[in-house]
Amino acid sequence: MRAYNFCAGPAALPTAVLEKAQRELLDWQGKGLSIMEMSHRSADYVAVAEKAEADLRQLMNIPENYKVLFLQGGASLQFSAIPLNLLGKNSKADYIHTGIWSEKALKEAQRYGDINVIEAGTQIDGKLGIKPQSEWALSEDAAYVHYADNETIGGLQFAGIPEVNAPLVSDLSSSILSAPLDVSKFGLIYAGAQKNIGPAGLTLVIVRDDLLDQSRADIPSLLKYSAQAKNDSMVNTPATYSWYLAGLVFEWLKEQGGVEAIHQANLEKAKLLYGYIDSSDFYNNPIAPANRSIMNVPFTLADEALEKRFLKEAEQNNLLNLAGHRSVGGMRASIYNAVPLEGVQALVNFMDAFVKANG
Amino acid sequence: MRAYNFCAGPAALPTAVLEKAQRELLDWQGKGLSIMEMSHRSADYVAVAEKAEADLRQLMNIPENYKVLFLQGGASLQFSAIPLNLLGKNSKADYIHTGIWSEKALKEAQRYGDINVIEAGTQIDGKLGIKPQSEWALSEDAAYVHYADNETIGGLQFAGIPEVNAPLVSDLSSSILSAPLDVSKFGLIYAGAQKNIGPAGLTLVIVRDDLLDQSRADIPSLLKYSAQAKNDSMVNTPATYSWYLAGLVFEWLKEQGGVEAIHQANLEKAKLLYGYIDSSDFYNNPIAPANRSIMNVPFTLADEALEKRFLKEAEQNNLLNLAGHRSVGGMRASIYNAVPLEGVQALVNFMDAFVKANG
Repeated sequence: MRAYNFCAGPAALPTAVLEKAQRELLDWQGKGLSIMEMSHRSADYVAVAEKAEADLRQLMNIPENYKVLFLQGGASLQFSAIPLNLLGKNSKADYIHTGIWSEKALKEAQRYGDINVIEAGTQIDGKLGIKPQSEWALSEDAAYVHYADNETIGGLQFAGIPEVNAPLVSDLSSSILSAPLDVSKFGLIYAGAQKNIGPAGLTLVIVRDDLLDQSRADIPSLLKYSAQAKNDSMVNTPATYSWYLAGLVFEWLKEQGGVEAIHQANLEKAKLLYGYIDSSDFYNNPIAPANRSIMNVPFTLADEALEKRFLKEAEQNNLLNLAGHRSVGGMRASIYNAVPLEGVQALVNFMDAFVKANG
Repeated sequence: MRAYNFCAGPAALPTAVLEKAQRELLDWQGKGLSIMEMSHRSADYVAVAEKAEADLRQLMNIPENYKVLFLQGGASLQFSAIPLNLLGKNSKADYIHTGIWSEKALKEAQRYGDINVIEAGTQIDGKLGIKPQSEWALSEDAAYVHYADNETIGGLQFAGIPEVNAPLVSDLSSSILSAPLDVSKFGLIYAGAQKNIGPAGLTLVIVRDDLLDQSRADIPSLLKYSAQAKNDSMVNTPATYSWYLAGLVFEWLKEQGGVEAIHQANLEKAKLLYGYIDSSDFYNNPIAPANRSIMNVPFTLADEALEKRFLKEAEQNNLLNLAGHRSVGGMRASIYNAVPLEGVQALVNFMDAFVKANG
């Protein structure tokens, strides 16, 4: 039996996607071999890879002057690749700091350039929020402005896309494909696959083509966006099976009605869970309403001593992986695209029963 | 029906491994979720990852003073990581050049240091072979000596392990686990997974612990061996599903009797195929017997015009992916661990029938 899985990542995948992958695992479309046993340069595999990209372009409405790269190394390798590719000669960039992941990104960038760190976290009525852009001291001459749209650990999300003059770069690992996004506002978007795209080991980079060719000379060849773009992400063998699975997820998303439809479903899930938490004296979410993530919902119990029991009983109720990140503790429910409304309803029902038994 | 797959990589995986992966794809060991939906830091996943490493250590008899890393980016990212980690202050290394892959490795290294290229290819009785080590002009002060044990494209393999004074570094992508290997003779071994280990997207690095800590200061954090070793290859989210599949392959190898047993099977397969080619006037293998790869067997037909028909009819006989690399043409049969003797016998039978019909 499949449980409801609230893991922050690697995260739940749609059951229908896993079922399709299972059916064709040993023999892809009657060809006598698994897709993972196929040359990445074979006509069959290239068609799979190209369809995945085409479906993603359609889902996200990606303009033609953007390249889509399917890379390895996780968003964390992009923490290095981005400054190495984009800093250019002035070596200066703005990084908006809102939590643990944007901090990791800026610390890596500081190894390569002059990084202007903008502390954007703030308290709003006793809750954590994001300072309005009018209070950010952006540089005049930044090569780019970086932010993490959704802080997976903190559950803190930007309410909109910042308006800046320099190319905008965003880590969308935990929010990509969860809501419509105007890609044309960005210079570069990147995301580890293991939340809303597919299995860990695949990284998506969407980059405007005028930014491809300004890398430092001495960077590892595989990290050069221009080389990867020129070779359709196949400078060397890509993570073929993960790319294929991402393609199945994109097909599934289209079957759900696309990003607008999944966004409505995500809003409904988030409203149900935040609504229940807000109605309760026993549970608390620490984020200001305007900046609440629709993907990652951290919460605490009124009595910390009950946390272990909460997790254990949740698991007995087939509600898995609700522990908060080891760096912050508490609870966290990640309700990515693949987590159905029924899963969130089951969680709320359990939370309510738990209060009645222990509150 | 499963065909016989002679692809050079991503390559055939053992059918038994794929069947096990298929059975537990949606629900791993009754836990209600797929292994690819599991946090890499969960106790269940860490146990899977640790067992894979322990099995590999046993299979390869890896000494305790070596770290085993499960990374991303392919062997090609290691072409950069190796000089960035190992060149140290003298910035000098020896690279043995025997074919296309060792050339790619040395070209990337030349971007970072003073590389002494040793041209080791030679003609032996009209066939391509490797010069004896006595003819190599090794440096006195190289930080390391690099070679590619088995040239996947050329089908050219070293007959033994070079004896050098500097740490020995080898790309074993297409020969790892195919034969017993004295790991203690190496400073570092690396291999892309997609031949004898698992799916593409996973890279194995086995490195002696005294070499961990001499990287350049400014390299991408994820490429630092010391950081990956300290964090058990989990500085960030690793390629969890590929790591799990590699573990299944290692279990399968143990069931086959380990590396010594698979080596005997590989020798038998290679003997059958090379023996048939040598007995024929129609087929030719261009490599000197002492340096023939037991994994990749390139061959040509007496009449080049018949190549397309050969490939088409082979496919009709469920013998897949026999085209040579696009850079060299001709044919190539990759007979990795997962290709059974029956597959090689079926290939030889087909080749013989093809000669009778067309020779």
